[in-house]
Amino acid sequence: MPQLGLLHGRAWASLLGQLLRPPRAVCMGAVHSHSQVSQTKVAEAVLMSPLKSHQEKSNFIIKTPKGTRDLSPQQMVVREKILDMVVSCFKRHGAKGLDTPAFELKEVLTEKYGEDSGLIYDLQDQGGELLSLRYDLTLWMQYPSSLTCLCEVPFARYLAMNKVKKMKRYHVGKVWRRESPTIVQGRYREFCQCDFDIAGQFDPMIPDAECLKIMCEILSGLQLGDFLVKVNDRRILDGMFAVCGVPESKFHAICSSIDKLDKMSWKDVRHEMVAKKGLAPEVADRIGDYVQCHGGVSLVEQMFQDPRLSQNKQALEGLGDLKLLFEYLTLLGIAEKISFDLSLARGLDYYTGVIYEAVLLPTPAQTEEEPLNVGSVAAGGRYDGLVGMFDPKGHKVPCVGLSIGVERIFSIVEQRMKEFFSFTFFALFYQTFGEKIRTTETQVFVASPQKNFLQERLKLIAELWDAGIKAELLYKNNPKLLTQLHYCENMGIPLVVIIGEQELKEGVVKLRSVASREEVSGGRQK
Amino acid sequence: MPQLGLLHGRAWASLLGQLLRPPRAVCMGAVHSHSQVSQTKVAEAVLMSPLKSHQEKSNFIIKTPKGTRDLSPQQMVVREKILDMVVSCFKRHGAKGLDTPAFELKEVLTEKYGEDSGLIYDLQDQGGELLSLRYDLTLWMQYPSSLTCLCEVPFARYLAMNKVKKMKRYHVGKVWRRESPTIVQGRYREFCQCDFDIAGQFDPMIPDAECLKIMCEILSGLQLGDFLVKVNDRRILDGMFAVCGVPESKFHAICSSIDKLDKMSWKDVRHEMVAKKGLAPEVADRIGDYVQCHGGVSLVEQMFQDPRLSQNKQALEGLGDLKLLFEYLTLLGIAEKISFDLSLARGLDYYTGVIYEAVLLPTPAQTEEEPLNVGSVAAGGRYDGLVGMFDPKGHKVPCVGLSIGVERIFSIVEQRMKEFFSFTFFALFYQTFGEKIRTTETQVFVASPQKNFLQERLKLIAELWDAGIKAELLYKNNPKLLTQLHYCENMGIPLVVIIGEQELKEGVVKLRSVASREEVSGGRQK
Repeated sequence: MPQLGLLHGRAWASLLGQLLRPPRAVCMGAVHSHSQVSQTKVAEAVLMSPLKSHQEKSNFIIKTPKGTRDLSPQQMVVREKILDMVVSCFKRHGAKGLDTPAFELKEVLTEKYGEDSGLIYDLQDQGGELLSLRYDLTLWMQYPSSLTCLCEVPFARYLAMNKVKKMKRYHVGKVWRRESPTIVQGRYREFCQCDFDIAGQFDPMIPDAECLKIMCEILSGLQLGDFLVKVNDRRILDGMFAVCGVPESKFHAICSSIDKLDKMSWKDVRHEMVAKKGLAPEVADRIGDYVQCHGGVSLVEQMFQDPRLSQNKQALEGLGDLKLLFEYLTLLGIAEKISFDLSLARGLDYYTGVIYEAVLLPTPAQTEEEPLNVGSVAAGGRYDGLVGMFDPKGHKVPCVGLSIGVERIFSIVEQRMKEFFSFTFFALFYQTFGEKIRTTETQVFVASPQKNFLQERLKLIAELWDAGIKAELLYKNNPKLLTQLHYCENMGIPLVVIIGEQELKEGVVKLRSVASREEVSGGRQK
Repeated sequence: MPQLGLLHGRAWASLLGQLLRPPRAVCMGAVHSHSQVSQTKVAEAVLMSPLKSHQEKSNFIIKTPKGTRDLSPQQMVVREKILDMVVSCFKRHGAKGLDTPAFELKEVLTEKYGEDSGLIYDLQDQGGELLSLRYDLTLWMQYPSSLTCLCEVPFARYLAMNKVKKMKRYHVGKVWRRESPTIVQGRYREFCQCDFDIAGQFDPMIPDAECLKIMCEILSGLQLGDFLVKVNDRRILDGMFAVCGVPESKFHAICSSIDKLDKMSWKDVRHEMVAKKGLAPEVADRIGDYVQCHGGVSLVEQMFQDPRLSQNKQALEGLGDLKLLFEYLTLLGIAEKISFDLSLARGLDYYTGVIYEAVLLPTPAQTEEEPLNVGSVAAGGRYDGLVGMFDPKGHKVPCVGLSIGVERIFSIVEQRMKEFFSFTFFALFYQTFGEKIRTTETQVFVASPQKNFLQERLKLIAELWDAGIKAELLYKNNPKLLTQLHYCENMGIPLVVIIGEQELKEGVVKLRSVASREEVSGGRQK
């Protein structure tokens, strides 16, 4: 057997370069959908089949806990691509990474969440501290159909505990919530959150504008379709309720009715406020005049002239900030994506200033089916009081931030993959080959048409791995060539290195494109 | 104000290229160490200061739960670099990603862990299923000083539940274990695991050899220092105990004594076996003859000729497989890193074939201080029976895999950073600049020496962001130039784009290297 030396990494790369073509993107939606279905069926079969009474091996049903699921390699590919894009945007804006434990002291969480604390997973008291799984990085409170970001408990706890006064950080992590899972909307009891926040005392609206810029960069980058970011301000909302004559005790209740305007008509919302929440009809009508308004900076100007609102100090402060914000958004090139929307209410309890929520705009087809709401995919706002609640001396650290609704985005992408909507969309996310969505990144497969070539295959693949090339072989002593080529087709591996008697004698390898069946030969160093 | 157009992304990149120099690596160990200390001090101060009795804001101590910690931006940088390297190696070998929920049904976990189940975090019974936090991806049982990988509960549950018969997958995730934290050794109650496993029926030793290749690639790539992978086989161990005359009832106890040979002398281990575990002295001596042996393939050959061991069928099977394994390891170019070590015992309960554990070899300085053990940093083995335990019909899926001890590796790297051991080591991991370890990746800072230039700064930074360049500015209307330059120095930002009256008039920007203070001017498109 001739002694074959190592081919230099760069030499390998150049050899591969001769055959690699941009991936084709065909038919993967259909194939993916099929594999998803069969996987689900298998899982169902396992779960539904009655267990035998005298099992030797397993006497319990094998499943994941309610509201949770394994993430398959296909799902992991989608997640990885989306999270990479989100995190690289956060880094582009100078954010540092931070991670906090999966559980917090129970009192840290329950102190903050009040009415929602029934949704928190507690750990059993096994002696020692009372603990609960973190409920958020940024809290997303789930109103009927919108994601509401209330506060940043672990982040606020970190800032207060370490007396950090300034920080721009991002955090990607899992959180857990004990609610009944409505899986169709992409909500589980375990899910991933992606947050970006800026803590610190700065000149007004500059960090707030950057948060909106980040939301726009991410949503544009993900190519989910047309979107709009609704903006409002807690002080304008409060001012509006005050000048319309809503009693302060009803602010919260009315606010949560207003919040439904993205999926209910004004008529129905008005009915709820008057009939169910006891608001005077004329007060409701005054509110209606405001909350049906949305527009750009001109609407801000118009509200400055509004005879009622301009009498309210709080509202004027909010309007002043929004005017400045729009100026900055214009400079950042995103003003046309932003809509001042007096119906945007969201979680009132922690926000202290500007609030925002990005929604995907329905396509014409969707508009027919479901005219009002496609759903919020990112949200955030200013919360200047929260860190102070954790600080022993109540020192405040102003914060503004955003959460990307990645679980909803994952669902949208997976749904579209199944529905096979748009090729250009997939091309962005997937290294595709032939008819498969790839769950591995293998570039080259090492094959031999001859028996007793395992040794040569192993030497060759070690050269490839050592040169940093992603490579696989079959774990068989003597696989058939056809089996090896089928594996490449199934896995979407674009290239095969083939070595046989002839190549070994000549000190070369044959490199073959799986798709085109084109072949080139290359020398190996002796 | 002249209307400034967008500079093309590539134009920006080329402008930046003029000034960017390879990062310098000076003094960062010292600085890092200092910042770590001060952070710890701040945290201590918060925790230790007696809380006032009439706090308005917070009436509980703010801390993370026992055995857990926040990961600071510095720690996150180390983790990210290490995990990137590990995962890219897994992908180079064709692995798919997989994720499982943080908790499993309690019975899934406790069925498997037996005596260790007291270490499992249970969730409180809040109605519904009884749940526990996952204890492993691969179970690492902690013997006195070695990491022992016993089994793959969530992976095995996934395979059985979905009737998957073949899969090469990696999994990176957090796991939780209620043990008393010995923080100096890098063990917490919450930690990260990195596993790679190959499930399926294949020809012998080919996937096993790939697992060892992966361990070597990762440990070489991380440049942690010299390392060795100890290899043994469960069947050789069992055969050795049998031919030495160990009663079968004592296999487990004697095995756990043997396992201590990496931190105790043979004399002490022998004493434990005879005096504490009641083994006959002549049996102990026979074992001693074997377990003090280690070497390469020649030791395998020698054991084939061993008069006692060669009489044992199990041992012969194990030796036959090891011989084949060494043949493959030679072809893969890593045989010199592997040592057949008859003292390698590890968790006997689930392994069915080859077992392995990588240890860092002590440096000469360490050998003086602590002669025996630097600690295991990766481990694994073959477990052909586990998936069958979850399968209702007991169908077996042979598996072989490995776990990278990333928490231990994180600790080693962090420790070395503090001890300021080696510059070349840091250069691998960190984008450094001046005297700082960078926790952000910002490439350019946008500054102005003049007042009322916020608008221009915002327009300029939006151009940079839109071109994919990582950029920051100060959130101030009129920051001093010195403040802006100090920020760059503190954060290690290498370049500053400066815009002032003069530049605006000429339609250019000035680009300045923070380290060299060198400046170039570049035009902006009108």
